Amino acid sequence: MQKQHIIRNIIVETPSKPGNFAKVATAIGLGEGDIGDITTLKSGALTTLRDITITCKSIEQLDQVIANIEEIGNGVKIHAVTDDVLNAHEGGKIAMKSRLDVRSLGDLQRIYTPGVASVCMEIYNHPEKANYFTSIGNSVAIVTDGTAILGLGNIGPVAGMPVMEGKAVLLDQFVGLSGIPILLNTSDPDEIVETVKHIHKGFGAILLEDIGSPHCFEIEERLKEELPIPVMHDDQHGTAVVALAAILSACKATNVDVKKAKIGQIGLGAAGLAICRMLMAYGVEDVYGLDRQEEAQNRLLKHGGKTIGSLEEMMETCDIIVATTGVSGLIKPEMVRKGQIILALSNPNPEILPSEAIAAGAAFAADGRSVNNVIGFPGIFKGALDAGASAITYPMLIAAAQAIVGHTKPGELIPNPLDPTVHQLVARAVEEAANKK
Amino acid sequence: MQKQHIIRNIIVETPSKPGNFAKVATAIGLGEGDIGDITTLKSGALTTLRDITITCKSIEQLDQVIANIEEIGNGVKIHAVTDDVLNAHEGGKIAMKSRLDVRSLGDLQRIYTPGVASVCMEIYNHPEKANYFTSIGNSVAIVTDGTAILGLGNIGPVAGMPVMEGKAVLLDQFVGLSGIPILLNTSDPDEIVETVKHIHKGFGAILLEDIGSPHCFEIEERLKEELPIPVMHDDQHGTAVVALAAILSACKATNVDVKKAKIGQIGLGAAGLAICRMLMAYGVEDVYGLDRQEEAQNRLLKHGGKTIGSLEEMMETCDIIVATTGVSGLIKPEMVRKGQIILALSNPNPEILPSEAIAAGAAFAADGRSVNNVIGFPGIFKGALDAGASAITYPMLIAAAQAIVGHTKPGELIPNPLDPTVHQLVARAVEEAANKK
Repeated sequence: MQKQHIIRNIIVETPSKPGNFAKVATAIGLGEGDIGDITTLKSGALTTLRDITITCKSIEQLDQVIANIEEIGNGVKIHAVTDDVLNAHEGGKIAMKSRLDVRSLGDLQRIYTPGVASVCMEIYNHPEKANYFTSIGNSVAIVTDGTAILGLGNIGPVAGMPVMEGKAVLLDQFVGLSGIPILLNTSDPDEIVETVKHIHKGFGAILLEDIGSPHCFEIEERLKEELPIPVMHDDQHGTAVVALAAILSACKATNVDVKKAKIGQIGLGAAGLAICRMLMAYGVEDVYGLDRQEEAQNRLLKHGGKTIGSLEEMMETCDIIVATTGVSGLIKPEMVRKGQIILALSNPNPEILPSEAIAAGAAFAADGRSVNNVIGFPGIFKGALDAGASAITYPMLIAAAQAIVGHTKPGELIPNPLDPTVHQLVARAVEEAANKK
Repeated sequence: MQKQHIIRNIIVETPSKPGNFAKVATAIGLGEGDIGDITTLKSGALTTLRDITITCKSIEQLDQVIANIEEIGNGVKIHAVTDDVLNAHEGGKIAMKSRLDVRSLGDLQRIYTPGVASVCMEIYNHPEKANYFTSIGNSVAIVTDGTAILGLGNIGPVAGMPVMEGKAVLLDQFVGLSGIPILLNTSDPDEIVETVKHIHKGFGAILLEDIGSPHCFEIEERLKEELPIPVMHDDQHGTAVVALAAILSACKATNVDVKKAKIGQIGLGAAGLAICRMLMAYGVEDVYGLDRQEEAQNRLLKHGGKTIGSLEEMMETCDIIVATTGVSGLIKPEMVRKGQIILALSNPNPEILPSEAIAAGAAFAADGRSVNNVIGFPGIFKGALDAGASAITYPMLIAAAQAIVGHTKPGELIPNPLDPTVHQLVARAVEEAANKK
C-alpha cells in the first residue's frame, strides 16, 4: 500500500479482439497504476472504447502508465486523459436549494412577505415550533478550522472546503440532512468556541471536522458543555464508532469476548484516544494505550485508560491491537502474537499489511481501507436530530456501532457505505438510545 | 390599507349555477377579507369546488368571513380552512443539496476520500481556484441578529428564520445562488463583526438582513472595511436601489429631471438614510431629510445631506417626497403641493394613500406595495460575485437601479419581480459596473 492520491480517467480504444484489453491492463499494472471502474463507451465491430479509472501515487507514475499504454501499439490508442475528480468539483459539490417553487405572486406572498410574518410570529410565540417551520432541525453545521484536513495537515479551511462539501453531500444523500460548511479563519479555541456559540441557533447540531489535536479536545468539550444541541467531532467519535463496529465484527468472526479481551491502542491522537474511550464505555476493562507523546498518554490516563511501557510490551500483552499512528510498517511481523486480532487503520498506509499479519499468526487482520467513517456520522446525526437529543452520548454511539455490526455480512468488517439501509438502521438505533435516557 | 398578515385558504363548494360564486365573494368582502388566488378544484355538473386564498387583518376578521360564507346557505359549503402559509413552511423552505449523485464506490472516491485530497491540494497551491472547485464563490451568507425582522421588531433570529429562508429561496430561484442563513445570538456590534469575520471565508458575499438601526450602520461599515468580499445590508441599500428605480420611473412618467429636483426623505431609519445617500450618489443636489430623532438627522448631515425644519416645510419645499416612517396617514392631503411626486413607502400602511395624494393635486403617487426589494438584491449579489468584486459600490447599485428602470413597462413603477429577465439584467448591469472600476 502506497500513498495514492492521483485519480485520472483514461479513454482507450482497442481493436475488438480478445486479449487486447488484457494488454492495456498489464501496461497499467506495470506502471503501478491501480485500476478502478471501467465503463465501455463503445463496443464496435472493429474497436472498443473504454473509460478506465486509474489511481496513481504521483504524476510521474501516471506518465509512466500512459507511456506504457502508448507503447503497446497494434491499434491501441489513448484518446484522452481526464481529471474526473477535478471535473466533479467544478462549481462546488453542494448548493442551497429552495424546497418550493415560486411561480406566482401568491407563492411569493406565502413564502416571503407578507405571509412569512405569521410564521415568524408563530415561532416567536412558540419557540419549539422552529423545528417544524424552519430548516434548523434538519441542519448540521460542518465546522472546521482547517488545521487537520484528511492526512494533509494544516492546509487551512478554504483548501479543506472540498472535504466539508463532501460531508454535506453524504448527509444529503444518505439521510436527507442539510450540511452547512462553516470555515473558521481562526484556530484559537476561545475564538472558535465563541464563534460557534454565536451562530449555533441556526443549526440543529454541530459536526466538528478536521480540527487538529490537541485543541480539538478542548473545543469539543467546551461546546458540548455550553450548547444545548448535539456536538460531535467526527474524527474522534465517528471514527471510534466505526472502529468499535469493526472490532465487534472481528471478535464475532474469531469468537473472542471483547469485554474480556485486553485491547491495545497504538497512537493516541484524536481517533486513538476516542477509540479507547469508546471501548471503555462499551465495557472493555483492559484498554491500554501507547503514544510517543506523554501529553497524549496523560489524556488517556485522565479518562481512565491504562498505558504500557513499549510497543513490544503492548504486542505481547494484548489480544486485540488497533493502530492509528499514520506510521507505515510500524508493526513488524515478528511482533505479532498467534491468534491476535490486528486492525492497522492508518490510511492509506497501514502499520502492518493484513497479509503479513495473517502470515505471522494473527487470527484476523484488516487495514483502514474498509473502516471508513462514512458509515457512521450521517445516521448518528440523523438519529440525534430525530430524537430531539441535546447531546450525543456514549449509549447513542454504541447503539450506532451495534446497528452497523448487525448489518455487516459474515466475513466483512463493516457494511457497504452506499447501502442506504445501514444509515437508516444507524439513525433508528441512535434515536432509540437517545429516547431511553 | 390595513395591516394584513393572516392568509388562509378556504375550500368552498357551491352549486354550479351562475351567481353562486358572487355570493361567496360578496360574503368575503363584507367581512373585509381580501381575495387572492382562486383555484377551481372540481367543476362538476352539480357543484363546483374552489380553493380561495383570502387575506385578513386578524383572526376575528377571518372568523367573520367564515361565518358570512356559512350564512349563505342554499348548498354553499365550506369544506376546509387551511393555513397554506404555515403548510408551505413545514420542514423549512430550504435544504443543502448535493449537486452530484453518489451511486458507486467510484463516485464516493471522487467526491470524498481519497480523490478529494487532490482537489484540496490544488486549492492549497492555487488559492484562487477555490472559486472554481468549491461552492464558496456562489454562496451568500444571510446574516441577521433578529433585531428588526420585517416590521415585527426585535423578535430574535430564530423567529426571523422564515424571512432568511425566504431570501435564500429567492436567491436560488432568481439567480441560482446559495443563500446560507446565519443566525446570530448577539446584537453587540463588536461580537457581530468578530463572528462574521471568523466565518466569512466560507462565503462569496455577506448579506446583512433585518439588523436594527442604529447598530446596523456601524456593523455594515466595519465589515465593508475589514472584509475582502462584498457586504451589503439589504434593508439599506437593496431598498434604496428599488426606491431610486421607482423615483426614476416616476420622474420619467412626469417628465421631471430628477437631478435638478428637490427631493425630501421623511424618516431617516436604515432605509431612509440609504435612500438619501443613494440619491446624492446618483447626482441629485438637493436632498433633504427629516426625522424625529436628532441622531438620525446628524447621520444624514455627516453623509452630506441637508435637513429641514418641519414636515410642513419639507412638503412646501420639495418636488419629490419619499416617506419611510412607518406612520400611517402622516402626510395630510392639505400638505400636498400641486404637481408633486409622492412615494409613501411604509408597508403595509402608507403615509398617504395614493388616491388621496392624487386627489390633493400630486402628479404621481404610489405606496410601498409595488416597491418590493425582491427585485434588487438577487441580481446585485449575482453581478458582484460574477465580477469577482471585493465590494458593492454606488456605481454598481446605480447600475442596478437603471437596469430595473430600463425593464419597467410604461405606467408601472417597477417590473414584476417574478420575471426572471429582470434579475439577469440587474446582474449583468452590476457586473459591468464592477468591471469598469
